Amino acid sequence: MADTYDVIVLGAGPTGENVADRAVRGGLTAAIAESELAGGECSYWACMPSKALLRPVGAVAEAEHLDGVTGARLEPDKVLARRDSFAHHWRDDGQVEWLKNAGVELVRGPGRLAGERRVQVGDAELAAAHAVVVCTGTQAAVPPALAAVRPWTSREATSAHAVPRRLVIVGGGVVGCEMAAAWQALGAQVTLLSRGGLLDRLPAFAGTLVADGLRDAGVDVRLGVAVTAATRGGAVADHEGAGAGHADTGGGAGTGAVTLTLDDGSAVTADEVLAATGRAPRTADIGLEAVGLAPGSWLEVDDTMRVRAIGGADGNGGWLYAAGDVNHLALLTHMGKYQGRVCGDAIAARARGQEPAVRDRSSKTCVPQVIFTVPEVSAVGLTKEQAEAAGHNVRVVEYEIGDVAGARLFEDGYTGHAQMIVDEQAKTILGMTLAGPGVGELIHAATIAVAGEVPVDKLWHAVPSYPTMSELWLRLLESYGL
Amino acid sequence: MADTYDVIVLGAGPTGENVADRAVRGGLTAAIAESELAGGECSYWACMPSKALLRPVGAVAEAEHLDGVTGARLEPDKVLARRDSFAHHWRDDGQVEWLKNAGVELVRGPGRLAGERRVQVGDAELAAAHAVVVCTGTQAAVPPALAAVRPWTSREATSAHAVPRRLVIVGGGVVGCEMAAAWQALGAQVTLLSRGGLLDRLPAFAGTLVADGLRDAGVDVRLGVAVTAATRGGAVADHEGAGAGHADTGGGAGTGAVTLTLDDGSAVTADEVLAATGRAPRTADIGLEAVGLAPGSWLEVDDTMRVRAIGGADGNGGWLYAAGDVNHLALLTHMGKYQGRVCGDAIAARARGQEPAVRDRSSKTCVPQVIFTVPEVSAVGLTKEQAEAAGHNVRVVEYEIGDVAGARLFEDGYTGHAQMIVDEQAKTILGMTLAGPGVGELIHAATIAVAGEVPVDKLWHAVPSYPTMSELWLRLLESYGL
Repeated sequence: MADTYDVIVLGAGPTGENVADRAVRGGLTAAIAESELAGGECSYWACMPSKALLRPVGAVAEAEHLDGVTGARLEPDKVLARRDSFAHHWRDDGQVEWLKNAGVELVRGPGRLAGERRVQVGDAELAAAHAVVVCTGTQAAVPPALAAVRPWTSREATSAHAVPRRLVIVGGGVVGCEMAAAWQALGAQVTLLSRGGLLDRLPAFAGTLVADGLRDAGVDVRLGVAVTAATRGGAVADHEGAGAGHADTGGGAGTGAVTLTLDDGSAVTADEVLAATGRAPRTADIGLEAVGLAPGSWLEVDDTMRVRAIGGADGNGGWLYAAGDVNHLALLTHMGKYQGRVCGDAIAARARGQEPAVRDRSSKTCVPQVIFTVPEVSAVGLTKEQAEAAGHNVRVVEYEIGDVAGARLFEDGYTGHAQMIVDEQAKTILGMTLAGPGVGELIHAATIAVAGEVPVDKLWHAVPSYPTMSELWLRLLESYGL
Repeated sequence: MADTYDVIVLGAGPTGENVADRAVRGGLTAAIAESELAGGECSYWACMPSKALLRPVGAVAEAEHLDGVTGARLEPDKVLARRDSFAHHWRDDGQVEWLKNAGVELVRGPGRLAGERRVQVGDAELAAAHAVVVCTGTQAAVPPALAAVRPWTSREATSAHAVPRRLVIVGGGVVGCEMAAAWQALGAQVTLLSRGGLLDRLPAFAGTLVADGLRDAGVDVRLGVAVTAATRGGAVADHEGAGAGHADTGGGAGTGAVTLTLDDGSAVTADEVLAATGRAPRTADIGLEAVGLAPGSWLEVDDTMRVRAIGGADGNGGWLYAAGDVNHLALLTHMGKYQGRVCGDAIAARARGQEPAVRDRSSKTCVPQVIFTVPEVSAVGLTKEQAEAAGHNVRVVEYEIGDVAGARLFEDGYTGHAQMIVDEQAKTILGMTLAGPGVGELIHAATIAVAGEVPVDKLWHAVPSYPTMSELWLRLLESYGL
């Protein structure tokens, strides 16, 4: 006979943990199935280890750009040890304890749907009284040609224990840019390849400033190039000059040098290659076929995270939910957690016979993101193109952040740029993109302005402190015409 | 015959500059009288030089608290040179050029009121068609006993060119705390004296964390003590041990050591003493008596910065305005600039026969402040006591910032505290106080929430990026009960 819980969650990453926690707070019982480490990708192979690596890199860069500060340098071994500590040495005891304290049952093993409201975890059969929630996230999507040379993915790039002498990164998105910054600073000679520019989903100035920063740090940034062939361990392997503290291979599975042939006729040889070419949903092996859905697909959801394709007896949606990366709305940990809170609360409300009071309002129009490169990039809301496509009459306001006194104080010779998107009907902020040192913590003010739909003539009375970088807000509003 | 301008401004600090600039943008002519450097206290003897000193101090402290970063240290001579650069070597060419480009006439000399709409600047007589605006700011208020030993004030503390071996600071407010942090880091042995605690206008945790930080840096912090006597150059002067790079006197006028006797029976001897004991309005010598006001008084204003005591022919207020520190609303550069914008716009509107469209909404209820100590402190809006005194039904939410993942990534072993004041009727944020490394740039998000009157259930949809320190917002809202 199956063990019955009100809610069964597949995947104990931050999203699944939030779903289960909110459901239990709402009076339900919850089990969570996890085949790897409780805590998920974010805790061990993404956000936490990557930022543990990148923060010392950023701090040294800041110090180097301040007259009156000298001598700051990285100790790569200690940076890696710091990363290990933030990744809890890839042990999940703390997360297991957290789940226990939250009253959530952890079931170890790969969870698979076995039918309506039924989940199989290894030999165990579980039944859900109210809902099953898919929070299995994503994994690296590696093109076959690259897969054949056993590349690093984001997992190895955030967990490797030795610094490759030469690292080539394929992909100019967030993972590619952040890992280029980290490993170059740690001592690798990094080559970063992109078919387009860098960070192409953001306004062009962001990628331009990050490319400048990476090049200043010594990265060989090659834009507009595609990989046409990849080989590993051939005669071109180059072992000469590998210094102490370097390894020809990092944490990856590869042995021997990798050579990538590019469509401009050139080639790159490195000791390791990172495939940072996108993400695929982890839904291939979770039994979607048992409920009539296509294995490997993204799961489209409504604003309570209920999977649209699964109907309920009442015609208002059914028992299957999907929160986090797997629904393809916004592939970011904080958005997964947000969706998890919405989802857990919605399931608990429906279990009480109530309509959910709080629905997802942000996953399509108010998604913030911080990219921890040198310089940093942060953004929230809609770009000009997105806003216009959504039918808004927009005005774009641009400002050089280095013209703000607080930015010049933050770093001598500060270079950065800001772009604000204003809805000319509603007179509210639809989006903002910032690129420059220290802009990561500046974006939440914009997130509040966007989510809060604060009119610009009220923002005028939100006076930024002098001399902080936040005085950028005054300059943007003045440039807008206030 | 007097030269006539639409608006005459006394004092070319940031406030006066903003008044004149906005008036000119509104179609008026404007003159500005300045007896010292155009740019004012902020540019040469306050915000800019102090933050130019403090930013390198903060950056080194951050680096010291990051595993994997080593070697960061200050070069005091270069920090002082950086400060000199940010203070434009106490030359105002740039500000003069700015005023010229803004279309504002600079009149060098001390401006004095000579009657209704009349100003004397040296030998020149000026007449104002519409308004005279007092923007003369404040100066250090030094108790007589301290004045007798020729102390540093904020001016010398921000402009001194040598590091005193021993510096004693009287006063535990913002100037005292910031200058203790700066000069201790630059090599002085600092003793900080306060009658009460530190930063007593803020919730107690702020002063406690700053005291801890100063003590960790080596400052001798003595709280609850008052100075009963001060002598300079007496037999107790102690010259032994003055190391290279130190001077027995800094930029101040004193010679010989200073000894302060305290009311706990102890004494402190130092090479220099900083009087950081408050501010007094610079209105003693501006001819207030010529318009029936008391010289040396603060000038009370309405929400367009019009001086209440001066009536107009229409009974709705007259021709005299006061913006910035001198009206005693909020003694901060950014608030002076804000008031200057409100004031210049209001004068221009009235000159067109219109009512001002934008009035001061923030100087009493939404004043942000950043204190650039190690750790930093930032605050905005009302404290619990202020909110309750204003009749609000408040709930206080507390959170340890070190429990936020982004804070732990920012500094290993992060220590900091946050307090949020919620209006339980309106369900909006009335105030926030933060203390901890890097909190300076976090406060503008709260300023937007307060000024924008954003309800907490909308703030819930302003998702902070993971893993930034701004995720503090999520934790505060969860702690509140969302």
